[in-house]
Amino acid sequence: MDSALKVNKGIPRPPEVNPRAGDILKKRPAKTMDLSTYLDGIKNRDISMLAQSITLIESTRPEDREKAHELISACLPLSGNSVRIGITGVPGVGKSTFIETFGKHITDSGHRLAVLTIDPSSERSKGSILGDKTRMETLANNPHAFIRPSPSGGSLGGVARKTREAVLLCEAAGFDTIFIETVGVGQSETAVHSMTDFFLLLMLAGAGDGLQGIKRGIMEMSDLLVINKADGNNVEKALQARTLYQGALRLFPPSPSSWIPTALTASSMEGTGMEKILGSINSYMNLTRCNGYFHKKRAEQAVYWMRESINDYLVSRFYDNPRIKKALPVMEQKVKEGQTDSFRAASELLDLL
Amino acid sequence: MDSALKVNKGIPRPPEVNPRAGDILKKRPAKTMDLSTYLDGIKNRDISMLAQSITLIESTRPEDREKAHELISACLPLSGNSVRIGITGVPGVGKSTFIETFGKHITDSGHRLAVLTIDPSSERSKGSILGDKTRMETLANNPHAFIRPSPSGGSLGGVARKTREAVLLCEAAGFDTIFIETVGVGQSETAVHSMTDFFLLLMLAGAGDGLQGIKRGIMEMSDLLVINKADGNNVEKALQARTLYQGALRLFPPSPSSWIPTALTASSMEGTGMEKILGSINSYMNLTRCNGYFHKKRAEQAVYWMRESINDYLVSRFYDNPRIKKALPVMEQKVKEGQTDSFRAASELLDLL
Repeated sequence: MDSALKVNKGIPRPPEVNPRAGDILKKRPAKTMDLSTYLDGIKNRDISMLAQSITLIESTRPEDREKAHELISACLPLSGNSVRIGITGVPGVGKSTFIETFGKHITDSGHRLAVLTIDPSSERSKGSILGDKTRMETLANNPHAFIRPSPSGGSLGGVARKTREAVLLCEAAGFDTIFIETVGVGQSETAVHSMTDFFLLLMLAGAGDGLQGIKRGIMEMSDLLVINKADGNNVEKALQARTLYQGALRLFPPSPSSWIPTALTASSMEGTGMEKILGSINSYMNLTRCNGYFHKKRAEQAVYWMRESINDYLVSRFYDNPRIKKALPVMEQKVKEGQTDSFRAASELLDLL
Repeated sequence: MDSALKVNKGIPRPPEVNPRAGDILKKRPAKTMDLSTYLDGIKNRDISMLAQSITLIESTRPEDREKAHELISACLPLSGNSVRIGITGVPGVGKSTFIETFGKHITDSGHRLAVLTIDPSSERSKGSILGDKTRMETLANNPHAFIRPSPSGGSLGGVARKTREAVLLCEAAGFDTIFIETVGVGQSETAVHSMTDFFLLLMLAGAGDGLQGIKRGIMEMSDLLVINKADGNNVEKALQARTLYQGALRLFPPSPSSWIPTALTASSMEGTGMEKILGSINSYMNLTRCNGYFHKKRAEQAVYWMRESINDYLVSRFYDNPRIKKALPVMEQKVKEGQTDSFRAASELLDLL
């Protein structure tokens, strides 16, 4: 992983090329090992081997894909025994610090935590591994925590799929709590929501403003709102915001989980509020495990990702075709300007193949 | 349209067959006319010819599709000059009565109104035309209104696309206000949202309960909440609900339109509140036409529908394949039970073709 990063450092990529993990690997193929080496490493909770396994599943080389599939299949019976928590919030809300503080609270409670990220804009060559390790320094040095940045480049669907595969490997390696963090710019929240059990939205006091950049609809998807930075002069404002949001959440359409989303305050700086957040997640897990929603949702998510994989493959193959790549921008412009209708444009593009 | 309905009446369809408009037409092909006959009819605002044109675009016969495409292209320069309003709400909220009352208010103000519906579950053979005409009796007899039920059967994507095509024809026939109604069971709201300028959510007083069945995220997409049935003993409750929701709406992420969604009360029975609702829509239109959001959104919607058409075609072709149809349920069950992972299952299904 780190070597792939170094290889690519300082090689600026022309902006029109969509960088993929596979491209990086193609330049200087990473040595891959036997399936059993990866699998034994994961079973033995060897963090370095887990990291290399994730690098394997992120590879797009056909021979790696096959091995990756086998590895995932082998890990499947060992996976699933974790609480998967999606964490989102706008840039500036303090996600990294929150994850540090809440993460420490979780590992201190005897859990093993893996932190994954979905960021379709990430290019690992820009140093986001280093970034992640720096911005979550305490967790990075915590023996019970594993931090893995977003797979780099590619479509949101592709990035998200790789993250979901990484979840399975982390679980097989004995991590019982998984955080999946979004970058909070309104693209990846739905993907994270569709692979987690519990969705936590970080907010700031100052109603409305703090949500700038969050996609509409995300608030209604959340199982818990946490008003962060409830410290110093901000405590009163945070408590007011909590009351407001608590009231608003009651007006939302009821969730099929029967869970009633709630709002809490926290200070990542001072470490306050963490116990209640963990309590809320535990209550949710108890409720949904008892009423069957937990397993129903996981089963639905698995089918969803199967269909997403199929659809993404079919659609990517179409849009990756050089003739379509050439014709698409012209056609889109025509459609935007009302020179042709959407359906004729679609039909003309489909006729190209 | 009506003849196709009659032809199909009394012919029960085996439940496993997915009925499509095309199936109906195949049984006894409807006579189609010259392109110019349709186009002249639309230009002359001939309602019967508009209805037959929509029947043409709903047909799946290849020769009809080609003619339909030409008709839509010919109508395109005449279309776009309307306000497209999405209306949703749970069954029982009083959508039909609201559309009757608000529709009359609109036609009384000198507008021409077309009411379309998206209902992926509709089978026209079950008499939904009759249903629509009965449940909106006043509008059905209003010379300035045109009511068209949902295209029957098929996938949501297909049904929605046909409705969007029908919008273009209605606009070309001089309708300056279009209602697109959903059945409000949580499936079609997103489709309606992606083809309308303004999204109106009908609600009942009695916080929360009234939203049962509305998909989470829909409330945040709405430009206006209307608390219906604000009459009799219900007025006080409706006003309280309005205050609550008004407060909640302020907490939502800001819309890129800069519009601040609002909540109003109305009584479809007594006809109260209609003026304010129309005022709200007009304010929205003024704002978004001035700040450029209106045109930007329409252009984005057009591109969205082009891509949706392509994706839907690619994906449908895959799932319609007999080998996939046979293998899919088995594979889905395996995925649900954790016997295989989503990605291997997807890959195995893709390998079948």
